[in-house]
Amino acid sequence: MTSDPTTTIPAPTNPTPPAQPVLTVTTGALPASAKVHVAGVIHPDIRVPMREIALHPSAGEPPLRVYDASGPYTDPGAAIAIERGLPRLRESWVAARGDTESYAGREVRPEDNGFAADDRLTPEFTTCHRPRRARDGRAVTQLAYARAGIVTPEMEFIAIRENLARQQAAETAPRRDGDSFGAAIPAHVTPEFVRDEVARGRAIIPANINHPEAEPMIIGRNFLVKINANIGNSAVTSSMAEEVEKMVWAIRWGADTVMDLSTGRNIHNIREWIIRNSPVPIGTVPLYQALEKVGGIAEDLSWQVFRDTLIEQAEQGVDYFTIHAGLRLHHIPLTVDRVTGIVSRGGSIMAKWCLHHHRESFLYEHFPEICEIMRAYDVSFSLGDGLRPGSIADANDAAQFAELETLGELTRIAWDHDCQVMIEGPGHVPMHKIRENMDKQLEICAEAPFYTLGPLTTDIAPGYDHITSGIGAAMIGWFGTAMLCYVTPKEHLGLPDRDDVKTGVITYKIAAHAADLAKGHPAAQLRDDALSRARFEFRWEDQFNLSLDPDTARAFHDQTLPKEAHKLA
Amino acid sequence: MTSDPTTTIPAPTNPTPPAQPVLTVTTGALPASAKVHVAGVIHPDIRVPMREIALHPSAGEPPLRVYDASGPYTDPGAAIAIERGLPRLRESWVAARGDTESYAGREVRPEDNGFAADDRLTPEFTTCHRPRRARDGRAVTQLAYARAGIVTPEMEFIAIRENLARQQAAETAPRRDGDSFGAAIPAHVTPEFVRDEVARGRAIIPANINHPEAEPMIIGRNFLVKINANIGNSAVTSSMAEEVEKMVWAIRWGADTVMDLSTGRNIHNIREWIIRNSPVPIGTVPLYQALEKVGGIAEDLSWQVFRDTLIEQAEQGVDYFTIHAGLRLHHIPLTVDRVTGIVSRGGSIMAKWCLHHHRESFLYEHFPEICEIMRAYDVSFSLGDGLRPGSIADANDAAQFAELETLGELTRIAWDHDCQVMIEGPGHVPMHKIRENMDKQLEICAEAPFYTLGPLTTDIAPGYDHITSGIGAAMIGWFGTAMLCYVTPKEHLGLPDRDDVKTGVITYKIAAHAADLAKGHPAAQLRDDALSRARFEFRWEDQFNLSLDPDTARAFHDQTLPKEAHKLA
Repeated sequence: MTSDPTTTIPAPTNPTPPAQPVLTVTTGALPASAKVHVAGVIHPDIRVPMREIALHPSAGEPPLRVYDASGPYTDPGAAIAIERGLPRLRESWVAARGDTESYAGREVRPEDNGFAADDRLTPEFTTCHRPRRARDGRAVTQLAYARAGIVTPEMEFIAIRENLARQQAAETAPRRDGDSFGAAIPAHVTPEFVRDEVARGRAIIPANINHPEAEPMIIGRNFLVKINANIGNSAVTSSMAEEVEKMVWAIRWGADTVMDLSTGRNIHNIREWIIRNSPVPIGTVPLYQALEKVGGIAEDLSWQVFRDTLIEQAEQGVDYFTIHAGLRLHHIPLTVDRVTGIVSRGGSIMAKWCLHHHRESFLYEHFPEICEIMRAYDVSFSLGDGLRPGSIADANDAAQFAELETLGELTRIAWDHDCQVMIEGPGHVPMHKIRENMDKQLEICAEAPFYTLGPLTTDIAPGYDHITSGIGAAMIGWFGTAMLCYVTPKEHLGLPDRDDVKTGVITYKIAAHAADLAKGHPAAQLRDDALSRARFEFRWEDQFNLSLDPDTARAFHDQTLPKEAHKLA
Repeated sequence: MTSDPTTTIPAPTNPTPPAQPVLTVTTGALPASAKVHVAGVIHPDIRVPMREIALHPSAGEPPLRVYDASGPYTDPGAAIAIERGLPRLRESWVAARGDTESYAGREVRPEDNGFAADDRLTPEFTTCHRPRRARDGRAVTQLAYARAGIVTPEMEFIAIRENLARQQAAETAPRRDGDSFGAAIPAHVTPEFVRDEVARGRAIIPANINHPEAEPMIIGRNFLVKINANIGNSAVTSSMAEEVEKMVWAIRWGADTVMDLSTGRNIHNIREWIIRNSPVPIGTVPLYQALEKVGGIAEDLSWQVFRDTLIEQAEQGVDYFTIHAGLRLHHIPLTVDRVTGIVSRGGSIMAKWCLHHHRESFLYEHFPEICEIMRAYDVSFSLGDGLRPGSIADANDAAQFAELETLGELTRIAWDHDCQVMIEGPGHVPMHKIRENMDKQLEICAEAPFYTLGPLTTDIAPGYDHITSGIGAAMIGWFGTAMLCYVTPKEHLGLPDRDDVKTGVITYKIAAHAADLAKGHPAAQLRDDALSRARFEFRWEDQFNLSLDPDTARAFHDQTLPKEAHKLA
């Protein structure tokens, strides 16, 4: 039994996208797993997907339900066709609210794809969906609905999804254990609890109205810790088919959101293919595409180009934007004594622009206008940390915390516009300085969700930065970070391939789950306990099937003890 | 430039040792590295090895010195011949103390090698060294000397070794940073400081007088965090040549000690080859061999067989013994409600013996006699945690902490005999319960060094337990654990091969170094800073060479950007 029967990956060495892209992605259930759906109560048409792992009859245990971010790709009953895209499950929910309109949308321009043409141009997606936007300047965000007391279908979907197995936990392990550092994790997640957390700004539901294919999920300190996987082509390598497969591959192993960090040509078209096929929220850094549009010259950026890019991507359905509006002109001198200066790509682009023009950042100055765009599509903010430390030496310095103060200020402006907000965090931080990052973020940003990259706890292990950062990610996740941005073994060295993506995702699933356990999430330990029982009873098949990566566990076991008899013992 | 030019590994599929073993191991310097030696002052014949990593001229920086556990194998000037063994550098130091005698020693018996014979018998080591032992019942331990106010050559060697680069750190980074949880890390390590820490029992120097090939090292909370790598053949696979190479390979990447956990045939002879070629302390679990001698029947174990095994291994030069004397008869009922019962191999053997005979453990009852043996050779105790938790569910339970109380009691008995002691710790522990392990151990065992396996912070990722445990190891190392026992990707699944050994060692070097940084070791950050400067200045070669695994960093980089021009930029 292998878990990826239909993998077909084009050779990664050809920088030109093939004229006939390979459109096959990895499908099929994980070993011993079945997709089940749980219906809503308030909204009966909701069908929340979960994965059930069947155990050996000798276990005398029911199947174990686990959170499932993998979408229809792991459902043997689903007909997958990349050229058609996924079913648009939220389309009717959005339409039913009656506060949006469809419109012609912005025309795709040659610069959107870096002027790629002819056989160098990635084909457009097969279907052109007319975009929707808010009518009459209204806010169509989950935050606006939450504040208005509305429990949306998205909120009920999330309550069912997060609530996974808590009933069972309440019955089998009534004692709560853990230290959540002041989080407010409920014994049972109700739709009303989801609404209340969103209304308070303590959680976000990244759900652009133009990405109806996405299965709703939530990012917040009082919910399960989430992870993000970055994908993206570059000027050097990779094609559309590869990127779609990377997305499918990343969610197969548990990525809760995917950021498309593509640069180079064909950005627009590749992104369209990804979004139309993604059951998880997609994040981007619009500044990257804006920079491509001005030929890579940071100084030539302008509010007009940036604004155009926001609308372009909002219409496509990007669910959250990293916006580096917290880096202000007067912060830049604070970085001069750093060992590694400004390492954030977005941060260095904006610093270059500010210094060249000797002007305040146009992102900061136009922030209210950015909010107006975000609220019209429900694109969530991921306020970027352009001044995050790039080395142990620079951790928790004046530049980093000065920017964080501005992010706190921007959080309140975004909230005033009914926009959803999360805050990005470092970076490279030694263990003893991690807690301070979390505490300051909670205080300064009024409990808006924290979304951190790692942090890496040492600089001396390139090639293993999934591990240097996995340590920091587990800790900051425990302290309260809501989503962990993965780091792959290729960090600092090159672009991740398919194996690196998987290694990064599994490492971060470990970190997130270790954090859930330590925070005392009521049902988190059920899977540990089921696997430990299987281990103690030598139910090898169950041990493999309950693990985060059944294929690797099985393969490692078979290297030493390849006989089937050893597994049935 | 490759770092392992002479690797020759016999095929690992043949369970029978070859009649003519392949005697080649990995030698040669790591990239851009040179072996340097620093002389002693009190003891001028001391030559403490360090590794100097040369940087590109454009850096304008001197070579960086790093701790070097790899022994003569990475010294291009050393003539390596496995059949001769390493130079016996401590032989004259031991002899000069005048408190030991050489004697005929115990005869090797057929059961010592599991009755292996003819071409199934691993050949004896080429040279038979007469063992030494204490004269007239004296204690020849580093603890006894320390208490007597004697600064041994071993202590000065260690002071120089630990003091590495602290002078430079004092000049370039005078501000101390970190949180050591009450440790007493000095700005400068003096030989007297080493003596004092050993005298207090807060640190041990594992240094059997019959292992004069070892380069002295120290395990204690106020010194750099150390790591151990486990090797060992089994009834199923592996040969002597493989095990010697695994030891050399493990120390090449930074293992500070190596435990030989062999079972099956040829244990005695394989161990002799390992010790004669090991520049790091070797630890064992004598109970494993004792069990082999009684045909694998735990109930047939006796104090006589165990005592005989202790003397056999002490004469060979094993530096520390794991002794599971803390598991007492009345502790066993405390495990009945556990999810994973008793997972320590030594623990389950002893529990079986105790239950069968319904008697107190012979290890506990004969503990003072064990001390008499240990002090005659200076074998250090590693008091085993036979009741360590094998799952998240069992962490920090009554059984575990009851045994810890007994380990505290035994620590004091060992100290009364002038024996050196460290304490083994768990195991599987979620993040929020790790700190309690450290705090209790320090209190109950009066600051004797803690030596922990991981701990693993979740049970759900077999195949990735180097990572689940690396998280816990970094944290407990920060809190005060003196040595971290590595876990490889094959944990729970099979025997580690050469790649697994390297992955385990590098992961644990990361954990130990992250802990050193967080504890505020004065010079720990020098390597991070040097690598970060190289990264910021795009000195790729320096970035590779300064990393824990230059070969992997280079290979990953070359996969994406294979051109030499990219490296010189």
